[in-house]
Amino acid sequence: ASESNLIRATLFPGDGIGPEIAESVKEVFKVADVPIEWEEHFVGKEIDPRTQSFLTWESLESVRRNKVGLKGPMATPIGKGHRSLNLTLRKELNLYANVRPCYSLPGYKTKYDGVDLITIRENTEGEYSGLEHQVVRGVVESLKIITRQASLRVAEYAFHYAKTHGRQRVSAIHKANIMQKTDGLFLKCCREVAEKYPDVVYEEVVIDNCCMMLVKNPSLFDVLVMPNLYGDIISDLCAGLIGGLGLTPSCNIGEGGIALAEAVHGSAPDIAGKNLANPTALLLSAVTMLRHLDLHDKADRIQDAVLKTIAEGKYRTGDLGGKSTTTEFTNAICDHL
Amino acid sequence: ASESNLIRATLFPGDGIGPEIAESVKEVFKVADVPIEWEEHFVGKEIDPRTQSFLTWESLESVRRNKVGLKGPMATPIGKGHRSLNLTLRKELNLYANVRPCYSLPGYKTKYDGVDLITIRENTEGEYSGLEHQVVRGVVESLKIITRQASLRVAEYAFHYAKTHGRQRVSAIHKANIMQKTDGLFLKCCREVAEKYPDVVYEEVVIDNCCMMLVKNPSLFDVLVMPNLYGDIISDLCAGLIGGLGLTPSCNIGEGGIALAEAVHGSAPDIAGKNLANPTALLLSAVTMLRHLDLHDKADRIQDAVLKTIAEGKYRTGDLGGKSTTTEFTNAICDHL
Ligand SMILES: CC(C)[C@H](C(=O)O)[C@@H](O)C(=O)O
Ligand SMILES: CC(C)[C@H](C(=O)O)[C@@H](O)C(=O)O
Repeated sequence: ASESNLIRATLFPGDGIGPEIAESVKEVFKVADVPIEWEEHFVGKEIDPRTQSFLTWESLESVRRNKVGLKGPMATPIGKGHRSLNLTLRKELNLYANVRPCYSLPGYKTKYDGVDLITIRENTEGEYSGLEHQVVRGVVESLKIITRQASLRVAEYAFHYAKTHGRQRVSAIHKANIMQKTDGLFLKCCREVAEKYPDVVYEEVVIDNCCMMLVKNPSLFDVLVMPNLYGDIISDLCAGLIGGLGLTPSCNIGEGGIALAEAVHGSAPDIAGKNLANPTALLLSAVTMLRHLDLHDKADRIQDAVLKTIAEGKYRTGDLGGKSTTTEFTNAICDHL
Repeated sequence: ASESNLIRATLFPGDGIGPEIAESVKEVFKVADVPIEWEEHFVGKEIDPRTQSFLTWESLESVRRNKVGLKGPMATPIGKGHRSLNLTLRKELNLYANVRPCYSLPGYKTKYDGVDLITIRENTEGEYSGLEHQVVRGVVESLKIITRQASLRVAEYAFHYAKTHGRQRVSAIHKANIMQKTDGLFLKCCREVAEKYPDVVYEEVVIDNCCMMLVKNPSLFDVLVMPNLYGDIISDLCAGLIGGLGLTPSCNIGEGGIALAEAVHGSAPDIAGKNLANPTALLLSAVTMLRHLDLHDKADRIQDAVLKTIAEGKYRTGDLGGKSTTTEFTNAICDHL
């Protein structure tokens, strides 16, 4: 790729194993000749007064400018008076939809075969409002906020995603039988958007029933869209079906076309710096970033190489029952490119 | 059992398949010579002004007087201005803990073997407060209420249950990393109670992670205790692991020692009256009622007979892939008594 055609993307290697798995992505992108130039940013050592968090103002500006980014795990430093790094990113960049493709990895056996679904989570409001207070001693309340604007926005994203990715069905997950006004508004917005997509089947599933159906037969689902907390729960449940957060890509979509892909697993401080980490989640997240940039060719090549390497099973990291180092696994992927 | 030793218990056969599966329980109890005399109550055809629901005042008085009851599925009649029957029962009888033993049925294959856990759900508050309102057009909020009293009460029940049922561990499920005050109070109460039970291991698990762990390896859990909505979600997820709500017993514990056991599946109007329903969930719920009454002998006999019948597989209802009628299945159970 010639200098002038390079797309700039922000990279947050993150904490713990973050730098090692970010290294793996950089290597794979180089070998696959992906026309991306990384702009690296690190979590600050002190609170930046402009963001009120350990995230620097410059790093947020970088994502806003580049509109695409990739993020490793970030461990929020212990202490009071500042927000979690993940929540700060969602808020500051208005990352309104968290999109997680969840598919079985060929050759990596779990109890479930052929899982292939997408969870799309509203990422800005709901139970995450942060509005809580003590009414009287021993009685506390928290506010769940659902707005028409955020519900329409994520519903629109979900249906558009379904349509442009050849998906047949969107299921809105809710508990409107109990929360008639809040989840009721969410459903009303989904129905309004559904009208505009006559080719996409629309259904509504109560969250408790949805979780039961998912563990019995995940193939019943295609694209799922839901309020924040349900998305938090269901996306992790789905990750469990295919082997865990170490294998699951994730991408956050923000206002103005921002896409911030991220590995949602932890920073695994116990194995950090030992060349033992599994870069799969970050690699597959980087693939979703490439798709967002319409670089489907590169995305396909990298995804295939990752999946093939895992399927062959010769090079696997410890979390997948193998003995390979991060470097060996990464080299095997590069060999498949 | 002689007349004078009979324990009176309220029976709500409920709607749809309710009467048929209730018939099965009555039959099995008769053959097993259980010293229980049923006091049957039906859902009214009109709203009883004293309960503001289709549940009659007399039926609630019956449970209050007898302190034990069994309930089939109830379909809340369509219409406005009245509460769901299930919620009314919980509220009116102060049914503060919903207890669901969840265990694999020998011989009935699912993806999971040897599941054996108990979910204990706070059943009166949390996201089920019913307090919702529109702030401005397009912005609605709902209140989640957590109180010290209800949290201590359900935590106390969970630890007492663990101790008296030979269970090793209680896991409190929460999202206190986001809802620090509400779920934080719930955890604080669990910790206080845990202090009093040094022989029971206590741990705290975030709900999203809990769901992932449950689908990967449910054997990681023993007794789980949690706020209302998480309990709603996780108890159904767990039911899915062992085959569904048609196989899962449930019992609600109320103030003053009330125990109202219930089948939590639906009323299945499509097969109602056709002698096709599976009475397993109601039978196993009745077993939990017997245990509550310390009739462990009878409970063991009936539970064994139900499990053996299912394990043999000769007589199974349609939902379990068999061809038996409710009557044939019930007779097979009676033959095992
Ligand atoms: C770490 C936590 C605040 C976060 C969330 O609840 O959203 C995580 O579970 C996630 O899904 O990204
Ligand atoms: C039917 C519904 C109101 C109820 C609930 O949400 O509690 C059900 O899901 C349950 O678990 O008993």
